[in-house]
Amino acid sequence: LSERSVSVGKLYLIPVGLGGEDDSSLLPKATRDATHGLRTFVVENLKSARRFLKAIGHPVPLQQIEMHVLDEHTRDIEPLLRLLASGADCGLMSEAGCPAVADPGAALVRRAHAAGVAVVPLVGPSSVLLALMASGLDGQRFAFHGYLPADAAGRVRRLKEIEVQAAAATQILIETPYRNTALLRSILDDCRGDTLLCIAVDLTLPTASVATRAVAEWKKKPPDLDRRPAVFLLYRDSS
Amino acid sequence: LSERSVSVGKLYLIPVGLGGEDDSSLLPKATRDATHGLRTFVVENLKSARRFLKAIGHPVPLQQIEMHVLDEHTRDIEPLLRLLASGADCGLMSEAGCPAVADPGAALVRRAHAAGVAVVPLVGPSSVLLALMASGLDGQRFAFHGYLPADAAGRVRRLKEIEVQAAAATQILIETPYRNTALLRSILDDCRGDTLLCIAVDLTLPTASVATRAVAEWKKKPPDLDRRPAVFLLYRDSS
Repeated sequence: LSERSVSVGKLYLIPVGLGGEDDSSLLPKATRDATHGLRTFVVENLKSARRFLKAIGHPVPLQQIEMHVLDEHTRDIEPLLRLLASGADCGLMSEAGCPAVADPGAALVRRAHAAGVAVVPLVGPSSVLLALMASGLDGQRFAFHGYLPADAAGRVRRLKEIEVQAAAATQILIETPYRNTALLRSILDDCRGDTLLCIAVDLTLPTASVATRAVAEWKKKPPDLDRRPAVFLLYRDSS
Repeated sequence: LSERSVSVGKLYLIPVGLGGEDDSSLLPKATRDATHGLRTFVVENLKSARRFLKAIGHPVPLQQIEMHVLDEHTRDIEPLLRLLASGADCGLMSEAGCPAVADPGAALVRRAHAAGVAVVPLVGPSSVLLALMASGLDGQRFAFHGYLPADAAGRVRRLKEIEVQAAAATQILIETPYRNTALLRSILDDCRGDTLLCIAVDLTLPTASVATRAVAEWKKKPPDLDRRPAVFLLYRDSS
């Protein structure tokens, strides 16, 4: 579909693990092979990116690998784009899971398209997708909202809007792990008792658990989610 | 999070390839190992499920593997649930990509939760997720609509609603490959020229391509998508 000059680099989108010990067993061979072939990376977090490359046995010493940061504080992505324009193949990595989903990487991918750079998405773990699969909720129609507002009033207002939409499609939310308890409390306090809530926690870790119950059921025995990576999904049966 | 008796089976959600030659290289070791351990499967399509198990080197001869069909024609899933209740671990497989996303599997997963069966999602390819990553469009907010109505009038009406929502979040559509040309024509004819359209086609295949352009640009040279698996994504910049 695309026309581009041969001198432009490709941008590989590399999923990384979800915080467990063994990233390597969660990564397909095709993803590992493509990553092994790269020497230049754009990463959300330097430390986790280095740990990941080590875990998947990257054949080049880390000191010889070029890493550039693209995180929520990055204002100017032109230098990153120039890397690609200069002909270097680059790998884009998020701190966890898939790049360009719920992280700042999408801006670079979009600019890459505009510059005629080929974009190659690779297969790997995504907590959002795993949670959706495992929820048992509507997988034909769903919406992802990312993070809700951090202030309590804004969060409740947004949550009520989302609960209305949950009558037509599965609604997916995430939160930074130290705010999970506050988000769970909002859901249990402010959503209707018969709204279905799926909580998917510690996905791909030995302590992983996914459960789908009515809000009223969860209220009887709320789980402890403090500082555990979690995905929340809401759905209302139409009747 | 869940309490269940030890005699109940687990339900493993097994992603399969997206139609290419080499499913095995797209599957992480953890997914392959879990699948190798199973003898009972609930599958959307018998033929593709058998081909998949062969491709990933399942250690048990296919004749000794128990397969049950769960597809769009399945009306009664109770027998499948009884399998799990009897203590058998089962694997759930879609015809392509991730089970319980845009396929009939979610109903079984939901019933499994209600019956106290542990649900274990495994990592693997999803064309929807790969397309979203590679689109460069908003990955912080997105919605998936599955298939649009097959009749032209219904499709156009739905498409216009979706285009409105594309101002707040990336909108993701799929179509059965033989209807791709009709859907593309609808998008090019009925959406605004400055709406961004990403077309992700043949993902994970050697002919894979992802491109994001304004509808007006696509109109100048529409791609041939006939019978190629494709994902369509729409987005409108707020201004």
